[in-house]
Amino acid sequence: MTDQLAVAPVRDDRRRGTDEQLRRRARAVIPGGMYGHQSAGPLPPEYPQFMRSGRGARIWDVDGNEYIDLMCSYGPVVLGHQHPTVEAAAAAQAELADCQNGPGAVMVELAELLVGTVAHADWAMFAKNGTDATTICCTIARAQTGRAKILVATGAYHGAAPWCTPRPTGVTPADRANLGYYTFNDLDSVRAAAAAAGPDVAGIVVSPFKHDAGYDQELVDPAFARGLRELCTETGAALILDDVRCGFRLHLGSSWEPIGVLPDLSAWSKAIANGHPLAAVLGSAAFADAAASIFVTGSFWFSAAAMAAAIATIAALRTDDAIAAMDRMGTRLRAGILDQAAARGLEIRYTGPPAMPYLAFAGDRGHELGSTFAAAAVRAGAYLHPRHNWFISAAMTDDDLAAALAATDVGFAAVQNRLAQPEATGSH
Amino acid sequence: MTDQLAVAPVRDDRRRGTDEQLRRRARAVIPGGMYGHQSAGPLPPEYPQFMRSGRGARIWDVDGNEYIDLMCSYGPVVLGHQHPTVEAAAAAQAELADCQNGPGAVMVELAELLVGTVAHADWAMFAKNGTDATTICCTIARAQTGRAKILVATGAYHGAAPWCTPRPTGVTPADRANLGYYTFNDLDSVRAAAAAAGPDVAGIVVSPFKHDAGYDQELVDPAFARGLRELCTETGAALILDDVRCGFRLHLGSSWEPIGVLPDLSAWSKAIANGHPLAAVLGSAAFADAAASIFVTGSFWFSAAAMAAAIATIAALRTDDAIAAMDRMGTRLRAGILDQAAARGLEIRYTGPPAMPYLAFAGDRGHELGSTFAAAAVRAGAYLHPRHNWFISAAMTDDDLAAALAATDVGFAAVQNRLAQPEATGSH
Repeated sequence: MTDQLAVAPVRDDRRRGTDEQLRRRARAVIPGGMYGHQSAGPLPPEYPQFMRSGRGARIWDVDGNEYIDLMCSYGPVVLGHQHPTVEAAAAAQAELADCQNGPGAVMVELAELLVGTVAHADWAMFAKNGTDATTICCTIARAQTGRAKILVATGAYHGAAPWCTPRPTGVTPADRANLGYYTFNDLDSVRAAAAAAGPDVAGIVVSPFKHDAGYDQELVDPAFARGLRELCTETGAALILDDVRCGFRLHLGSSWEPIGVLPDLSAWSKAIANGHPLAAVLGSAAFADAAASIFVTGSFWFSAAAMAAAIATIAALRTDDAIAAMDRMGTRLRAGILDQAAARGLEIRYTGPPAMPYLAFAGDRGHELGSTFAAAAVRAGAYLHPRHNWFISAAMTDDDLAAALAATDVGFAAVQNRLAQPEATGSH
Repeated sequence: MTDQLAVAPVRDDRRRGTDEQLRRRARAVIPGGMYGHQSAGPLPPEYPQFMRSGRGARIWDVDGNEYIDLMCSYGPVVLGHQHPTVEAAAAAQAELADCQNGPGAVMVELAELLVGTVAHADWAMFAKNGTDATTICCTIARAQTGRAKILVATGAYHGAAPWCTPRPTGVTPADRANLGYYTFNDLDSVRAAAAAAGPDVAGIVVSPFKHDAGYDQELVDPAFARGLRELCTETGAALILDDVRCGFRLHLGSSWEPIGVLPDLSAWSKAIANGHPLAAVLGSAAFADAAASIFVTGSFWFSAAAMAAAIATIAALRTDDAIAAMDRMGTRLRAGILDQAAARGLEIRYTGPPAMPYLAFAGDRGHELGSTFAAAAVRAGAYLHPRHNWFISAAMTDDDLAAALAATDVGFAAVQNRLAQPEATGSH
């Protein structure tokens, strides 16, 4: 609520009528008006709640206002919206069949492609949610080891089931009775959590880098990753890489391959089918029997259209050299933003990999400056987020980058303006 | 394994080469060769594992063999495969956008439509898996009551998360620490389970009728349903109807509306978008604040294409009078099957509603006769299941019904033949 009150009034020429009308209707039939990570409720009121369409790196809200997309649907869109070969593959499969009494041939093709693409993977299973994938990894680790405890980093996001949702309303202590906690990049804290769990550690879940919403991001210390790998190898616990958010945005393989650390199990979703609903668990041969021993399933886990989209996505990631494109555009965006902030004398922290950056203002603990920045940027046509990492897609052109930077400069101007007002600086 | 060994060899003229080749490839890259409810591993070897396409009530496997579809993708396909208005709505939405930074207008339209269609529903939330929906219902019930225990019927299927999967490999005791168990249709057993939980019952989950795989189905005793409703109203616990499997196949509303019992919360998936990936939680106004208080989400829960498909599905269910069509065709199928069995002197039990029947042979505890029947029927062109209820779609024509009955008669002939062989009857 503080965010919304704290945003300085700035002229907004965008059309808003359809969004406002839909919000009113939504409040009557959807709890809280909206829920989950796509609720605009906690965002500045300048954000649209409802979106209409997208193409490449451009998106339009239901009132027809255009934005450069720096959120990419919170990660799924990696090649840009409406990527032609992905959409064609999904549509062709859907015209044949999607949800059947058994999977289509595409399931085998996709599993083979993932095994050939991800270094640690000897097999693949598919599901629908990132949460499905992280939960399945924990279940396989428990089946493999006969142990119960799973170690996770404090504050890390691994999904929204009762065992992992960040807001534990409606969750019971039993749902988390078998979790232990460590601090990301602190190997001693992992050893302490493992010692506390005694001989009962089934697995350690870890994100490729620290990307907790609302906090500066932290890249992984390779020594930390190697230490986790050694600890798991010594104890037989599963090293579980939660690649749901990062997978296929940083590397065409699991995200720790560049530092030479391979997990036993990895969880995937979001970007693997460029927006089509799919999740995957990948694993090494040593865990295949355990994976076959559990019973997990879902009504749409064998559906063919999203799998066809994933095959086309992986092919396009390769042929478009998409990982390099995202890194290159992200690097240019970072350079531009750092220049803009410096030119206005604003102290910012811009953390994380170039393709998944997070922006914070010095001393901005309540995210008031971040909200001022984001509200002005979204009014000026860049859809980014005040408290969550952004996502760069491979579809971003030079024009898109220039438009994004024009909007972020409007955001910085709004922050500068706010800081120049004495009542604003004294409010916290 | 006994099923596969017990099936008598019968001539099979169908092409099988592509399926066999895909199975070999799958064994190399998918744990156990396949997993979940769509694994053909536990089925007689006559079943195809991989499917190619479908249209109406006809489906084709990857080798091009045609079947009358009596499984309907285990429930999702309710209007028939490739229903024109559903596919057109999904494709039109997908061409505009599917997964975006926020939902499309279709989310509000669908929520309004569900609230207008389902008597107990004042609001809707959407997800991807039936398991998402049942789990969210439990979380809302706990948030609403501040209590922990959930009562479920012994043997009932409510999904495949650790708290409910029927094969608890990799599951810990903590995952089920807050469950209590009752017997379906036995109100005294519910009262006993509630008494054992003391003042801590948050909710009671119940299926519209007893449809546990591998067992005769049992319709609900209306007095049992009313008793559950009274108990929940007295104690403040949530009455949670798991309509994932039955929803929109038995009634255009929640499945206990015909007997006048309305739940507080209901879980939906499968048929609501005719095969497109979607799940929903519907609830009454009294539970809206609790629903808004929890944090649940998923990368694809706000995607628009499946919601557009759901809107078209509900419209078509109404305009095609699909519920009545399924009941009518299911009633004719039942009559034909009962006649065939009687004509061959075979004692069968054919249980459940006409649109979701379950066939069992007297004395067939190991499902050997059921497997013999199913293997012969699938060879003869009817895709049904030896140990799971079947599903009738509204697309079934007179020709489809005649073809299905021709195949089931081949199945009964195979059973009759098997029973005539002395070594078979003595094998168990």
